[in-house]
Amino acid sequence: MKADPHAARSSNAALAEPSQPRDRRSIRRTNLGVVLRILRDSGPRSRAQIATDTGLPKPTVTSLVAELLALGLVREGPAQREGAVGRPGTLVHIDGRHICGIGVEISTSYVHVLALTLSGASAFEHRTAMAVADSGTDEVLDLTARSIRACLAALERDGIRPVGVTLAVPGVIDAHTGTVHYAPALGWRGVQVVDGLWARLEQPVPPLTVENDAKLGAIAEYVQAQSAGVRDMVCITGERGIGAGIISGGQLLRGSSGFAGEVGHMPLDPERRQCVCGRLGCWETMVGLDTILRLATDADDEVHDPDVELEIRLAELHSRADSGDARTREALSHVADDLGLGIALLADVLNPGVVVLGGYFSHIGDLMLDRVREVVRDRVMAPDAGGCEVVLSTLGFRAASQGGAYLALDVVHQDPSGI
Amino acid sequence: MKADPHAARSSNAALAEPSQPRDRRSIRRTNLGVVLRILRDSGPRSRAQIATDTGLPKPTVTSLVAELLALGLVREGPAQREGAVGRPGTLVHIDGRHICGIGVEISTSYVHVLALTLSGASAFEHRTAMAVADSGTDEVLDLTARSIRACLAALERDGIRPVGVTLAVPGVIDAHTGTVHYAPALGWRGVQVVDGLWARLEQPVPPLTVENDAKLGAIAEYVQAQSAGVRDMVCITGERGIGAGIISGGQLLRGSSGFAGEVGHMPLDPERRQCVCGRLGCWETMVGLDTILRLATDADDEVHDPDVELEIRLAELHSRADSGDARTREALSHVADDLGLGIALLADVLNPGVVVLGGYFSHIGDLMLDRVREVVRDRVMAPDAGGCEVVLSTLGFRAASQGGAYLALDVVHQDPSGI
Repeated sequence: MKADPHAARSSNAALAEPSQPRDRRSIRRTNLGVVLRILRDSGPRSRAQIATDTGLPKPTVTSLVAELLALGLVREGPAQREGAVGRPGTLVHIDGRHICGIGVEISTSYVHVLALTLSGASAFEHRTAMAVADSGTDEVLDLTARSIRACLAALERDGIRPVGVTLAVPGVIDAHTGTVHYAPALGWRGVQVVDGLWARLEQPVPPLTVENDAKLGAIAEYVQAQSAGVRDMVCITGERGIGAGIISGGQLLRGSSGFAGEVGHMPLDPERRQCVCGRLGCWETMVGLDTILRLATDADDEVHDPDVELEIRLAELHSRADSGDARTREALSHVADDLGLGIALLADVLNPGVVVLGGYFSHIGDLMLDRVREVVRDRVMAPDAGGCEVVLSTLGFRAASQGGAYLALDVVHQDPSGI
Repeated sequence: MKADPHAARSSNAALAEPSQPRDRRSIRRTNLGVVLRILRDSGPRSRAQIATDTGLPKPTVTSLVAELLALGLVREGPAQREGAVGRPGTLVHIDGRHICGIGVEISTSYVHVLALTLSGASAFEHRTAMAVADSGTDEVLDLTARSIRACLAALERDGIRPVGVTLAVPGVIDAHTGTVHYAPALGWRGVQVVDGLWARLEQPVPPLTVENDAKLGAIAEYVQAQSAGVRDMVCITGERGIGAGIISGGQLLRGSSGFAGEVGHMPLDPERRQCVCGRLGCWETMVGLDTILRLATDADDEVHDPDVELEIRLAELHSRADSGDARTREALSHVADDLGLGIALLADVLNPGVVVLGGYFSHIGDLMLDRVREVVRDRVMAPDAGGCEVVLSTLGFRAASQGGAYLALDVVHQDPSGI
């Protein structure tokens, strides 16, 4: 026999994973999650349809659905006739109305709390403006704790149970100890946010974790993009600093200590200009928010006024470009070149199918996109086959807390019986 | 209840994976692999010990071992007395002597064939010198096919069954179609290596696949490093071109089209010098083999002579540095700076625990290592917590074919019953 030379071989694993032996309990847990995700992703269906979709035996599906019903994660809907013949089947619906995850973003200019139910609906949302870098850590944590308490109170009133809270912070995070190791944009070093909030919340609260904002933004973008089959993407935050959340083969890339994605300090500037981090030539000195504002306008221009909402200042910049202002257009073109240079580098290293531009790019990036794509196409090693699509985020400044809420909810999908 | 705020949460998955429902067959397959890997990684042991190690019920282990015995993947060894009391137990040993994987590297200067048994022993090895870029594709494939045939004949004589062949090529690979998309160092574009070899091999051959050499090198390094618990590493090839194999969370990072790891063309040179690829400022113009030779010596120096083995030329360079030659030492220091710059970038993006320097670096990198480590420490965002160890490869020019043999063998670990 001459075997097929194109025989499918390797999974994404480096080599066969040292997987744990599988026992009945872990199998059941997995299968509960499989059924729940089928209902979430493909809508209500009969037990027979679930059996067909999953390949699981009908009695197994019946028993799994019974457990999910008992857990309050699914409900039965009105009977329907399946096709023209046969007896009516009852539909099983996902019932995530009473379970939610909470995402809390501590950004440079606000604290944002968002609770999303398992069905994906917003159960609570509130944003409080605050110049975080100019405030003391205690003041910021006090406000954050108040915001979380308000959220928990509202959820309790509505009979919705939170399964977890994820904090999003723009910096290097030690998720294990709940510490913000270094967040230059906030002026934070070694801040124990989880313990700090824990001490301030004087009521039963669900588990609290902290994660980098770019990583959580990437999770939110990934959920959006999943229907398109995207498994590899890079999501770039565009604020004063530039960070990235990397999804590789459907996995969030964390690295050995969870610090992956610090793309803002790649030394790409040939002029090696000084960065706020103390190093020379960092990418964020080329494409960060301050740079585009500086290139496009004089220092006393109104777009620099920190008291005006950033969205409004960006809209002003956009309208200047629209009306043909040469300096604005040149600035956008200049930043687009440098943005393309860095994206091409990341495309060569990571080969993502999609690069999503968030933050300020989602407000004025439409004016840069053609040029960015051109530079990426010219610069990547394998443009025809390995080139990547560059798109703008549609989630805007909500991405990080949305990703935080999704991550908090993930515990339900991983182990529906454990909540 | 106030839940533990540090409660373990997320796995490495972006969100719960859309895992396949698990059935009896897949469970058994997984558990066969688990038993096999326990024996490979922890040595011979009794069925009782395997049950303890895996947590599987004793009757299940007995049945799994029986199947592995029937497949010829394990054998029973001499009885031993377990401790002071109790009845004697028979030991189960991995018996990989009769199964092997084959790795074949087509490099710029040689074709190397290596067969490794499941137990890790070398069953066949042969290297043929060839200036691949100066030879026609047909000539290279003819030689490669001859080498594989010689290997298969030797294995047949010895009663060893090959389960797969992996080709390693320094370039952008389309593994799905078995095509080398672009390999600048070989001067190849769009070469259908798998079909080409397939046509030349006029005998039954195991499945053939092709993969990027840096990725396969990384697999070999990963297997070496696994005992140290490393799950995130970057392995840098150092030849004329510079590539990387990236392992992230125990997974080989391939990217959306399998082209991840093209680090040689990161635009890091502030002087934006011309690269062979046509672009400006690529990292490999700063740290590639040709650069160190050019910086350290005049063009007519003997170390440039392509007719002299590269190892010998590198040894000459090393001894000049050892004897204090200023120009050589300055060249090494210069390249070390630029090497550190790029490694720091990769450390910020990927946060690997370890960066392994292969190829020419494994011959003269000891002279650069202190300086490289210093630059990396100065340059990464989180040196105390996120910094990474930089080490030299001990596998040298054997890494790619070794990784190829491992990858070919992986099919056995993934599904022992399927071979």
